Amino acid sequence: MTRSIILDCDPGHDDALAILLAAGDPRAELLAITTVAGNQTVEKVTRNARAVCTVAGVEGVTVAQGASRPLVREAIIAPEYHGDSGLDGPDLPEPTVPLDPRGAAELIVRTVMDREPGTVDLVPTGPLTNIALALALEPRLAERVRGVTLMGGAYTRGNRTPAAEFNIIADPEAAAAVFAAPWPVTMVGLDLTHQALADDAFRSRVRALGTPLAGFVEELMEFFTQSYARRGFPAPAVHDLCAVAAVLDPDVMTYRDAFVTVELTGTWTTGMTVTDFEGLLGRPVNTRVAVSLDRDRLWDMTVAAIERLGG
Amino acid sequence: MTRSIILDCDPGHDDALAILLAAGDPRAELLAITTVAGNQTVEKVTRNARAVCTVAGVEGVTVAQGASRPLVREAIIAPEYHGDSGLDGPDLPEPTVPLDPRGAAELIVRTVMDREPGTVDLVPTGPLTNIALALALEPRLAERVRGVTLMGGAYTRGNRTPAAEFNIIADPEAAAAVFAAPWPVTMVGLDLTHQALADDAFRSRVRALGTPLAGFVEELMEFFTQSYARRGFPAPAVHDLCAVAAVLDPDVMTYRDAFVTVELTGTWTTGMTVTDFEGLLGRPVNTRVAVSLDRDRLWDMTVAAIERLGG
Amino acid sequence: MTRSIILDCDPGHDDALAILLAAGDPRAELLAITTVAGNQTVEKVTRNARAVCTVAGVEGVTVAQGASRPLVREAIIAPEYHGDSGLDGPDLPEPTVPLDPRGAAELIVRTVMDREPGTVDLVPTGPLTNIALALALEPRLAERVRGVTLMGGAYTRGNRTPAAEFNIIADPEAAAAVFAAPWPVTMVGLDLTHQALADDAFRSRVRALGTPLAGFVEELMEFFTQSYARRGFPAPAVHDLCAVAAVLDPDVMTYRDAFVTVELTGTWTTGMTVTDFEGLLGRPVNTRVAVSLDRDRLWDMTVAAIERLGG
Amino acid sequence: MTRSIILDCDPGHDDALAILLAAGDPRAELLAITTVAGNQTVEKVTRNARAVCTVAGVEGVTVAQGASRPLVREAIIAPEYHGDSGLDGPDLPEPTVPLDPRGAAELIVRTVMDREPGTVDLVPTGPLTNIALALALEPRLAERVRGVTLMGGAYTRGNRTPAAEFNIIADPEAAAAVFAAPWPVTMVGLDLTHQALADDAFRSRVRALGTPLAGFVEELMEFFTQSYARRGFPAPAVHDLCAVAAVLDPDVMTYRDAFVTVELTGTWTTGMTVTDFEGLLGRPVNTRVAVSLDRDRLWDMTVAAIERLGG
Ligand SMILES: [Ca+2]
Ligand SMILES: [Ca+2]
Ligand SMILES: [Ca+2]
Ligand SMILES: [Ca+2]
Repeated sequence: MTRSIILDCDPGHDDALAILLAAGDPRAELLAITTVAGNQTVEKVTRNARAVCTVAGVEGVTVAQGASRPLVREAIIAPEYHGDSGLDGPDLPEPTVPLDPRGAAELIVRTVMDREPGTVDLVPTGPLTNIALALALEPRLAERVRGVTLMGGAYTRGNRTPAAEFNIIADPEAAAAVFAAPWPVTMVGLDLTHQALADDAFRSRVRALGTPLAGFVEELMEFFTQSYARRGFPAPAVHDLCAVAAVLDPDVMTYRDAFVTVELTGTWTTGMTVTDFEGLLGRPVNTRVAVSLDRDRLWDMTVAAIERLGG
Repeated sequence: MTRSIILDCDPGHDDALAILLAAGDPRAELLAITTVAGNQTVEKVTRNARAVCTVAGVEGVTVAQGASRPLVREAIIAPEYHGDSGLDGPDLPEPTVPLDPRGAAELIVRTVMDREPGTVDLVPTGPLTNIALALALEPRLAERVRGVTLMGGAYTRGNRTPAAEFNIIADPEAAAAVFAAPWPVTMVGLDLTHQALADDAFRSRVRALGTPLAGFVEELMEFFTQSYARRGFPAPAVHDLCAVAAVLDPDVMTYRDAFVTVELTGTWTTGMTVTDFEGLLGRPVNTRVAVSLDRDRLWDMTVAAIERLGG
Repeated sequence: MTRSIILDCDPGHDDALAILLAAGDPRAELLAITTVAGNQTVEKVTRNARAVCTVAGVEGVTVAQGASRPLVREAIIAPEYHGDSGLDGPDLPEPTVPLDPRGAAELIVRTVMDREPGTVDLVPTGPLTNIALALALEPRLAERVRGVTLMGGAYTRGNRTPAAEFNIIADPEAAAAVFAAPWPVTMVGLDLTHQALADDAFRSRVRALGTPLAGFVEELMEFFTQSYARRGFPAPAVHDLCAVAAVLDPDVMTYRDAFVTVELTGTWTTGMTVTDFEGLLGRPVNTRVAVSLDRDRLWDMTVAAIERLGG
Repeated sequence: MTRSIILDCDPGHDDALAILLAAGDPRAELLAITTVAGNQTVEKVTRNARAVCTVAGVEGVTVAQGASRPLVREAIIAPEYHGDSGLDGPDLPEPTVPLDPRGAAELIVRTVMDREPGTVDLVPTGPLTNIALALALEPRLAERVRGVTLMGGAYTRGNRTPAAEFNIIADPEAAAAVFAAPWPVTMVGLDLTHQALADDAFRSRVRALGTPLAGFVEELMEFFTQSYARRGFPAPAVHDLCAVAAVLDPDVMTYRDAFVTVELTGTWTTGMTVTDFEGLLGRPVNTRVAVSLDRDRLWDMTVAAIERLGG
């Protein structure tokens, strides 16, 4: 079964892996890569997305730049994890893949509306600004996509604050709109992605490929490992990779249904994905929440994609 | 001095007057009418906007439909003021002016970016969803427009709640983004527009024109008068008309500078335009706030525009 | 008709006038003066209350010190209006009236519960911490008092922030509890008290009394006039005086019924007394809100009280 | 080392166990039991506290009734866990232990202030209303107690809502004041107490005591087990017992330092104990947070206390 994916991202080391999986897995048709301000400014992450494509030899994919700031709030970035470029570590080549003149939201709307209903998966791995904008411009998007599988949120603890994960708190109003819309949402949050620590075993398998692309990945992981080491992690969590994997192979993780909404008015908790598994709030289920990862299966498909891309 | 105006509205009885002034005043070049869900659903208010153009013989203007719901929250409407159609009272003709296939936000972006910098006035007289979307799609809009002159808000008391005016509370996140953006904003709020009560003196002058269009206006005012009578007003406040008037003839009212922001987290006050004239909050001025109306001057230009349109 | 009053205050120049009226008006039985942190620390305002009594020759009244900080938030003070002592201007004598060993909340509870039901008026003219504490310690207080007539809040604009008046924002949780309790509340807010500007006409009448106490009042008003002049007022608003006056002579002002609640979660509006005259919120009336002042009547009773106290 | 404890509770099945441990452990001097509205109305939980004392033969302890409702909000109760009486299951005897005429807050203040500084432990196992009131009445309490060891909160997920634990959300303003005060706070929250499931092994040991009191405990646990079974738990969490245990034997659990504050303005998260172990919020540590329980040690001391009480 092939999945037609629009990857909306803010590369970012783990977004880079997400791009490689979406571009290299035989089950994926990567319709477009759209970018959004998040880990770094939109100009930087757009350059990063295109550079990753260039390194990986991914030439035909449409790349479009999106929102430079959140819907309502001031922008925040994450150089403490991803460095000043947003993708520190390896030398990045000059991108060769062209930039589509359309904006990300417009491209998402056009791509989804021009294809058969129920055939496109939106996979946001950055703040949800572009997705919320596309939905605002074209509310019928909600019934046209196959689903939205996003990396973001948490049901226990956050990473940017004790309550909030970065992608959500970076544009909480956009996230609230995405969870509230009548489309199937899968939340791949920190509780899942902290099970995806890119440890030595994974890195050894990548290195063993011996290709330039494998070397590039290794350099990314080397930098990312140091970022996470400063926060007490033995290895870096490759969050965004998991969202792409969930679309291509849902059995790579398990899920629980929940009502999820985003706190917008908290003094300390804004950006928290309030996740009600138990029905305490009396609201209908609106989200499939990833809870448990088959890590070997994730590494297998990721290594295979990197190998398949060659490079 | 001619002003090039995009009127973003949700007709609405007072929006209808705003259209007539923008279409009939010799100082106005009406570039486009864009519509937004507010007083009624976007489908209804779009039909109303087009019907008003048809009644007034305004044929060449571009009309584009915009957002069907707020950025984040559930939609609210105002049938208690404007009836089930959004423009109850007169029989509305079948619209003859065509509907542009583009969305309102896209049209706003294109119109502003295609013209000389500093030449286009945005005049929103409904919820600010389209304006916020346009700004999100193209942040350079902030430095390209001449300004934003909006009907909305209040600096003492609201009308939808004790704290909030309808246009702002209908999409408070959009309003917050509009006030926060680095463009010149003029707020024409309830404190000003409650000085613009369409009393018998005004209505007599319109009736005296004796044209079909004057009759149409009279039927609108008849219905609107009854709506306001139920709330204890001697005559209806023609809010939106004032915003257009402020662009065409700034001397029709006086202003005070203030920092204005929109409350988004209040239990009782969300949608309030917090207006700091005194610098109590220590924030820089970002808005010119209308405070006092020269009512005769407003009626003069409005009657003249209706007369000039003929009909 | 005599009124038995507990004056809960934070003197403060206008609190001082409130004490004089409550002590000198023949219709008032001043049961106790209790103090609360507000305009200054509780130690300072307690000293001020006792010093005012000493200057005015008020010897028998019970004075008890209350809360040194709000229920939940950090304390704020108002030296910009009342100076470093809380009662800058005149030299204050060493207080001779003793301090009751009981805390204010305990004293309020005991005083009210020991007297006939429906005979005691609580008149808070500072933050509402003591009143809320007394109510929490003894919920039956709500049915035992004759009523609560408080100086605080506003139904248009605040003074500490654009939305909030000082006494309310200084302890908004306490204020919320006071408005929510099932006792008769009269709100004498800024909309009323800004009609009570202690202008030259009033001050001349006081000066003409020629007593030392009159001279003390004049020195208070001299300082207070300068504080208000810096904020663009022609004369200072003697807020707290109005609350005592409303108890002794309800006809000194007019009132409108409303539902009033205190905003506790606003980013910009916390401490606002949301006042719903029109029933927009669908809540039952819980407050009598003062709207219009008979200023001459206020000055008459105030001058008479100062004269009667002698001094 | 003996600990002098004031147990402020809302019995409640687990509060009942807390009373038994505080009354029966040789290291505990139980100075007073104070009660607060929580699991049930204050009248019901006061009767329950006294009835537990009667069953356990605890005669000399001071019992005082406290707050009947939260500081600001409407009361909530928890009959779904504790039944209509607050202590459903066993037949409760008519209490014989007298009720002190003083209110709980007053009693707490007097007890602490009359004893040597640093010698009294406050152990709240219900909503924190009484503790906040005592602190407001006497701020020096903060430097006079040995510490506050409270059952409440969570650092991952709540039980009343996805974000909030019952004791905290039942009076979040009181809880916020308690965490903010400058006294040593130990938080024994759900993450710890969900490790204290009263399973068959524990219950067998109690039953084996063969005393009437052991039979009473068994009847409590039987009812409580069914309440938790309806929520998918294999056994009931005896939350409050853990707080008393932590005071008597700190080594029964491990702790991590954190900044803890209570969310008061969230739409979905009010009452959450935001717990910052990592310093993400840049605030100083103010709480010792219990994280890991030595369950055997807890059962040992609890069974021993029940045995020692006889009954
Ligand atoms: Ca990302
Ligand atoms: Ca309108
Ligand atoms: Ca005062
Ligand atoms: Ca309890």
